[in-house]
Amino acid sequence: MQLSARNIIDGKVSDVELGAVMAKVKIEVSKPGIITALVSKEAIEDLNVKKGDDISAIIKSTEIIIAKK
Amino acid sequence: MQLSARNIIDGKVSDVELGAVMAKVKIEVSKPGIITALVSKEAIEDLNVKKGDDISAIIKSTEIIIAKK
Amino acid sequence: MQLSARNIIDGKVSDVELGAVMAKVKIEVSKPGIITALVSKEAIEDLNVKKGDDISAIIKSTEIIIAKK
Amino acid sequence: MQLSARNIIDGKVSDVELGAVMAKVKIEVSKPGIITALVSKEAIEDLNVKKGDDISAIIKSTEIIIAKK
Amino acid sequence: MQLSARNIIDGKVSDVELGAVMAKVKIEVSKPGIITALVSKEAIEDLNVKKGDDISAIIKSTEIIIAKK
Amino acid sequence: MQLSARNIIDGKVSDVELGAVMAKVKIEVSKPGIITALVSKEAIEDLNVKKGDDISAIIKSTEIIIAKK
Repeated sequence: MQLSARNIIDGKVSDVELGAVMAKVKIEVSKPGIITALVSKEAIEDLNVKKGDDISAIIKSTEIIIAKK
Repeated sequence: MQLSARNIIDGKVSDVELGAVMAKVKIEVSKPGIITALVSKEAIEDLNVKKGDDISAIIKSTEIIIAKK
Repeated sequence: MQLSARNIIDGKVSDVELGAVMAKVKIEVSKPGIITALVSKEAIEDLNVKKGDDISAIIKSTEIIIAKK
Repeated sequence: MQLSARNIIDGKVSDVELGAVMAKVKIEVSKPGIITALVSKEAIEDLNVKKGDDISAIIKSTEIIIAKK
Repeated sequence: MQLSARNIIDGKVSDVELGAVMAKVKIEVSKPGIITALVSKEAIEDLNVKKGDDISAIIKSTEIIIAKK
Repeated sequence: MQLSARNIIDGKVSDVELGAVMAKVKIEVSKPGIITALVSKEAIEDLNVKKGDDISAIIKSTEIIIAKK
């Protein structure tokens, strides 16, 4: 199965915590890689983002899907 | 500024591509870290996710916010 | 009220499960329809998605809003 | 590969439209199924959602990942 | 139609900009209100969020659905 | 830190409610502002959204990140 999602980051589960309906999973990522982000052109111009800049990718935990082989 | 988002991944912009309204940014991540995911308890039980499992975190590119210092 | 969201899928509630803050709802969909997805052009080219292909739409449960008439 | 995402809906691509950075895909779903939604308990109580209710699942197109076998 | 989404913010369109597949809409909000956010308990504890604190709600533009009466 | 997210809405915490894994935060917004939404061009044409229209921005609570200074 091939996914349209551009970011598939491999790791190992380091913790699982269960609630009544939700659960929290901590994943230890073993090696760095490339992250692809789609943002508004307005943001790129406003922040003046260009090749070589130091930036951070911010991801809310609810947006992450996990996959097990 | 402190964020509720649990995943803040540092890197360097390796490519920027502009559309009319959207833009795509490639970020080269320098060092691995911990990813926190919030999923349904049902999924954890169905996939039998437990400490030590090899799993992947899947993130759609539109879900990523970028930050510049 | 008309929504910009392209996917409005009618069904019947088959189960509700309450947590402290979150709740899980199961919806039995009665008839098939059309799903509209917006993904990166990069993904379409990488997966070579074209008319007639068998594909799956993957949706995380937290991304779904429910509406009652 | 098993996914934590609770909604995997099979269909056939009926249209693909490319922009500069984004693309729109129309998927014809062949058979109805079950949709799982995670919402706030507050919403369930406010809308008085219960078994047997007619409801709609609303999904923004940007939230959909596609998969090809 | 009643929505499970807790945030429905009324305003007036001040600008529309079309791309090939996407569009950007600016909405001038007329009066302030209450915003409901669902985050991890971990974030609340880590940021020590409590009644009376000055905080900001951060929302990526792709996460917003628009509705017209 | 500058964010690509176009919507940063200031307010005061009026309530916090903790679950096992998730938490709900109510934020009282003090002054109105501008909301930026990215939707499909198809939706803009279908709803005939144009300057001056009265519209609503709908945001699911799980999509909101909070920030504390």
